Amino acid sequence: MEFNDYDFFIQHADINLYYATKFKAIDLAFYIVGNDGTDLLLVPDMEKERAVRESRVKEIAGFGDLGYHDLRREFKDSRKAQAEMLIRLLKTHKAKIVAIPTNFPAYLAIPLAQAFDVKVVKSPFLRMRAVKTHEEIEFIKDTSRAVISAFEFALKLLRREKSCDIIREIIENYLYLKGYLANGTIVSSGKLSAIPHASGGVVEDHVVIDVFPKSRRHHYYSDFTRTVVVNRNDKIEEMLEAVIEAQEKAISTIREGITAKDVHYTVCDVLESYGYKTLRQKANEGFIHSTGHGVGLEIHEEPRIFENETVLKAGMVFTVEPGLYYREIGGVRVEDVVVVRKNGYDVITDYPKRIYLKYFLKDA
Amino acid sequence: MEFNDYDFFIQHADINLYYATKFKAIDLAFYIVGNDGTDLLLVPDMEKERAVRESRVKEIAGFGDLGYHDLRREFKDSRKAQAEMLIRLLKTHKAKIVAIPTNFPAYLAIPLAQAFDVKVVKSPFLRMRAVKTHEEIEFIKDTSRAVISAFEFALKLLRREKSCDIIREIIENYLYLKGYLANGTIVSSGKLSAIPHASGGVVEDHVVIDVFPKSRRHHYYSDFTRTVVVNRNDKIEEMLEAVIEAQEKAISTIREGITAKDVHYTVCDVLESYGYKTLRQKANEGFIHSTGHGVGLEIHEEPRIFENETVLKAGMVFTVEPGLYYREIGGVRVEDVVVVRKNGYDVITDYPKRIYLKYFLKDA
Repeated sequence: MEFNDYDFFIQHADINLYYATKFKAIDLAFYIVGNDGTDLLLVPDMEKERAVRESRVKEIAGFGDLGYHDLRREFKDSRKAQAEMLIRLLKTHKAKIVAIPTNFPAYLAIPLAQAFDVKVVKSPFLRMRAVKTHEEIEFIKDTSRAVISAFEFALKLLRREKSCDIIREIIENYLYLKGYLANGTIVSSGKLSAIPHASGGVVEDHVVIDVFPKSRRHHYYSDFTRTVVVNRNDKIEEMLEAVIEAQEKAISTIREGITAKDVHYTVCDVLESYGYKTLRQKANEGFIHSTGHGVGLEIHEEPRIFENETVLKAGMVFTVEPGLYYREIGGVRVEDVVVVRKNGYDVITDYPKRIYLKYFLKDA
Repeated sequence: MEFNDYDFFIQHADINLYYATKFKAIDLAFYIVGNDGTDLLLVPDMEKERAVRESRVKEIAGFGDLGYHDLRREFKDSRKAQAEMLIRLLKTHKAKIVAIPTNFPAYLAIPLAQAFDVKVVKSPFLRMRAVKTHEEIEFIKDTSRAVISAFEFALKLLRREKSCDIIREIIENYLYLKGYLANGTIVSSGKLSAIPHASGGVVEDHVVIDVFPKSRRHHYYSDFTRTVVVNRNDKIEEMLEAVIEAQEKAISTIREGITAKDVHYTVCDVLESYGYKTLRQKANEGFIHSTGHGVGLEIHEEPRIFENETVLKAGMVFTVEPGLYYREIGGVRVEDVVVVRKNGYDVITDYPKRIYLKYFLKDA
């Protein structure tokens, strides 16, 4: 933790707290680090023993140890009592500049800002999480193998099943029983696929299948999309070829030291060269989203791959997922997860991209 | 919406936004209501069409419609750009007092508080959600039937299977394939069960099974706990009898007009009458948590059933779940979901409470 800009940092109970402490908070918990050596996990009394068992933090206190219950009875308001508990703790430690993460809840942020010089910062754990350890990459690879296996299973279904909703449910059930939880899986076809996050409908000429499960065991995500051509459709196939070329060219640029926007603009360059519109031309059809996002303990995390200047570091893991969306035609998207290496990259969802159902399934 | 205390209320993308608008936000969205008639759902451009399809809100704008993209390029910071977008919108509407929910993110709360008189309030939707419609109660009953069916399945497993982790996984798989997602299911035995939220270990004299799934279709939760006596254990059985008596007596008091603390203190009275300690005696063993919590689109929501003065209203749905926890003995807990009625209550997880495995399964 760097304490150049602040004395204390308070992490509330989101996935960053789990990352930093290995304690799975139910509702409430705070992890407090300070430039005086403070390294404290603060949990409801009932959770104290579980925190001692699960967490890697050595100093663990219950709310009761910090006078919370008396404060709650005094204010008759548990939120005010929490704020006062934190303020008193920080004053005991002579805190002056207190940093809180961007998504810190307002009921604590506003009272803290009245008591201290409060800085809203990107959680330092968010930054740490962006660069994965070897173990974390193995976890993401594990989930990636599962998602590809589920996709192959879905391909076989596509021969007969025509309901996108049923295909989606079967994919999610398949993954769950293998130990992975996929929520919000997208299976869309026809013109509906022009809406990037829509799902459902009947299988027409092509199907976009976008699956992003996490492991029920180690909690790491993967994210994988393929566009399957069920019946020939010239416009869709042209769009798909352009998207595959854009994706492959963008991936080929990846190595430590380049910036997120280099990757994003490579996608835009290729798509624009074929006459498709992109967001940098303020289009509302064509390539209308960012190129990708980090994948780890959350499905969307750092680094973002868009117009930002984020410098890629070895060990970063993110998606490269260009797409094209036209209301009168439909949408296509191709997505892989890549790891940045010192001199290049690894694709960890390696799988064919040109999937013409009739030919592809010959041997299946 | 009541506008006595403020001109505008901004709801960010949590479950309250879904409740209020029926739009399932992925990451970002704002629902803004104002005393000038403003009733606006604000979503990333890419989500606009999906919002129009899914949401019940009539006026839907994309971030781009409010100048977000220029602001993002100007500030080179998407969070600052969002804050500025909201501030400009509210200024256009001549807002003075702007209310935000307690869990509103700090990166927006702090800049808003510099531009307006900001009030941090309990989201009005949280209050609305506490009282369920007939349809919502039917959804919770649906999930309750599923959880009881999963529990009965687990009972049969208990005859042979001795791993709490395996029983848990089978319960969760069973529910998933029926269309319900159970996360964090607790199956604990022996002394480990003295930690209320711990799970795992080997089946010993008794097992606490606490399952809280939500429907994958309508998204409503249920929450159900039973303590199963596998082999006779006098102390556990005495604790269980006291907990059942406390739970039944507390439930029998429920009707519109009483307060949450009436229910909670009834539990405490019964348990203390048997010499067990409770939280109101500042105990750290015995009954060391609250009596219950609302159940709906979230597993923990309003009303809280603790020392609070919340007045119960017909249609409120919550758990009554006393427990006793002693490190040297273990823990027991019995939990049902109840609906408050004008002159009483309904238990919607009706199921026997004295489950002595050997006798109970005779006919199974």
